[in-house]
Amino acid sequence: MNGEDVRMRGFRTRASLADAQAAAWGDVVLPHLLLPADEVGLSAACGRLLAEAVASDVDVPAFRRSAMDGYAVRAEDTFGASLYDTVRLAISGESMPGAETLPRVGAKQCARIMTGAPLPEGADAVLPAEHAKEDGGAVLAEESVTPGKNVGQVGEDVRRGDSLLAAGRRLRPQDVGLLASIGRGSVRVARRPRVRIVATGDELLAPGERPRGHRIVDSNTPMLRALAERDGAAIESELRLRDDEAAIRAALAAPGADVILTSGATSVGREDRIPLLVAELGSLLVHGVTMRPASPAGVGRIGAARVFLLPGNPVSCLAAYDLLAGPAIRVLAGSSPALPYAARDLPLACRIVSQIGRTDYVRVTIADGKVSPLATSGASILSSTTRADGFVIVPEGSEGVAEGSVVRVHLFHDDVRSALP
Amino acid sequence: MNGEDVRMRGFRTRASLADAQAAAWGDVVLPHLLLPADEVGLSAACGRLLAEAVASDVDVPAFRRSAMDGYAVRAEDTFGASLYDTVRLAISGESMPGAETLPRVGAKQCARIMTGAPLPEGADAVLPAEHAKEDGGAVLAEESVTPGKNVGQVGEDVRRGDSLLAAGRRLRPQDVGLLASIGRGSVRVARRPRVRIVATGDELLAPGERPRGHRIVDSNTPMLRALAERDGAAIESELRLRDDEAAIRAALAAPGADVILTSGATSVGREDRIPLLVAELGSLLVHGVTMRPASPAGVGRIGAARVFLLPGNPVSCLAAYDLLAGPAIRVLAGSSPALPYAARDLPLACRIVSQIGRTDYVRVTIADGKVSPLATSGASILSSTTRADGFVIVPEGSEGVAEGSVVRVHLFHDDVRSALP
Repeated sequence: MNGEDVRMRGFRTRASLADAQAAAWGDVVLPHLLLPADEVGLSAACGRLLAEAVASDVDVPAFRRSAMDGYAVRAEDTFGASLYDTVRLAISGESMPGAETLPRVGAKQCARIMTGAPLPEGADAVLPAEHAKEDGGAVLAEESVTPGKNVGQVGEDVRRGDSLLAAGRRLRPQDVGLLASIGRGSVRVARRPRVRIVATGDELLAPGERPRGHRIVDSNTPMLRALAERDGAAIESELRLRDDEAAIRAALAAPGADVILTSGATSVGREDRIPLLVAELGSLLVHGVTMRPASPAGVGRIGAARVFLLPGNPVSCLAAYDLLAGPAIRVLAGSSPALPYAARDLPLACRIVSQIGRTDYVRVTIADGKVSPLATSGASILSSTTRADGFVIVPEGSEGVAEGSVVRVHLFHDDVRSALP
Repeated sequence: MNGEDVRMRGFRTRASLADAQAAAWGDVVLPHLLLPADEVGLSAACGRLLAEAVASDVDVPAFRRSAMDGYAVRAEDTFGASLYDTVRLAISGESMPGAETLPRVGAKQCARIMTGAPLPEGADAVLPAEHAKEDGGAVLAEESVTPGKNVGQVGEDVRRGDSLLAAGRRLRPQDVGLLASIGRGSVRVARRPRVRIVATGDELLAPGERPRGHRIVDSNTPMLRALAERDGAAIESELRLRDDEAAIRAALAAPGADVILTSGATSVGREDRIPLLVAELGSLLVHGVTMRPASPAGVGRIGAARVFLLPGNPVSCLAAYDLLAGPAIRVLAGSSPALPYAARDLPLACRIVSQIGRTDYVRVTIADGKVSPLATSGASILSSTTRADGFVIVPEGSEGVAEGSVVRVHLFHDDVRSALP
């Protein structure tokens, strides 16, 4: 792709969606090794990709501990004890969790002990409180226990030297707990892919402004931010630029982003300079994709950054994000490129028309368990995507799908209970 | 439940898990109405529950706009135009996106126009650039267009007065874009449930400290934080307290939390004061649940706060969170109480033993597409939950599950591809 100028001429050829997707993330492997590591505190670690192999340099616990509330005993002293033939053990003291000094348990003695407390020297088992009665300064054991019973041994949870968590693992809540338990307060995780959003157009007002005159509010930037954050990105910056070549060039050329999402200026309009600038600053791998909407979408590279040229029309922007940029961001974040929407297979209430050689992203609604394409097909109608329950992909080999056929709906929301029969 | 003192005696009765769950969240309805609203900026709105009905007070677009890059024309002037019989239209000027002043398009005239730009007065259609050639100061139309063709009418996306988003909706990326497009910079959303974590025990060190002597690091607090945040909570505070009745009472009584998660001091140990304190300060609805692990778990209320008494053993803490506290937090956050783990139905490689009348939370691994319970059953072995691929719930009506039976595994992680056949 040499950055052919399509402005006011039109595309001569377009890439297939599969080729565009291959250009977008086909070369990404082992993301946790590709992106340098951040050191994060435990409260921010859950859900992140571990960038180190974690082993323990301590035993957990580092001492023998009681697994029950009750009495630390010498097991042999309890042999033969029952509810009807109790054994009397003198209380020599108590062991509470965290205790620094401990009683000794001699023959026919015991010590009160709570769950998690260190086992006193001399004791080798714990008699649960439910099977003992205190009687003056002594305990009547109503059950026998075997040596080691209800005692957690040194290292029973984690042994010093154990390999605990492999590099590349996505950290779970319990992993964070385990890290704390071995004395870690922070951990190295793969950096989130840094995403820069560059929206261009003299007509754009900043979000929060009220539309006025011939200007509209930039709705793509807040949508793209939410999509990219959902997919594991950190937003490096958001730039909203006028149709000013120098400003756009500078925004594309600046280092610091793993992914650049541009919005607008990628079609055949006179001000649509982004494809040419990407070709000038790096390489334009794909411009024009056989998909609908979003056929002017493109994929390129500038330095280490992957650049996605997303159309300015908001529905096209969403479709090109979902099918090109989103999978790349998810792969860079260590996730699957698969669509992150819940899916349902449901029959069509009426046919969907498409074309051989074109992939369609069809907004649909679900009613009574059946799927209908939205009548509003315009790529500029953002509200169509908020009315839709989801979308159906009609692949390029298909010229449409007949009424009654079962299609896979990618749901924009989790809750379609009300829309199901 | 009157706060019977079970310390050093044991539970006389326990509630069924179903009863405990009913006490935990059975009364919660319409969460976005229950929790007061926060006003949040658009960049923080995605995924939140809308606490207002959003209607538009503007038309989007507020002007007729071009849907294509090309030429604004009077459609009737193009009638009959074809590649072999072009129609010549004089260029009267141009309309760029955001333009404040526009040319007029008279008979046999046209104006250059870009996608999104306002349609000049006199024009009623847009001839795409691909079907026109510029020739000096004129354009040769190679195709005819009908009136309205490639023109977006006023309000085509959103009409002033349209109801757009209903209260209670979970905001999607495109909803955030739509809010921006109608001039909103912030939106009212239901407050996240505020969760206070209160871990007690003289033996606990703060996360980040290295375990030493007879003390262990509090692993439950970081795990509970991650779990609660996953489920939509905001952490109101984290308190790590010694076994000091006055301090624990103050931590439970302080206003400001929707949910209080206590960790530890809920069993039959001498220092296990939390059930009595909950009964004193509010009501202890359940103490002791017929489940394993986590049988000492409890549910109560203090003022408006729901209190979950989670055992200090980390596996019990996780199980009681997953089956009691987590669903309640998710319901308060407007989600389903259902377990938030991906699930797979897979056959058992060996039997799971349980008891009639007890619900078991069984940590399992998956190998070659078959499920095995972890041999390590201790509730104190946190590392068992990091080695496990997920868990299986054996309901109280069952005394176990036979080898080869298909069980539902709730996966601790998304990626079991390597463990599947």
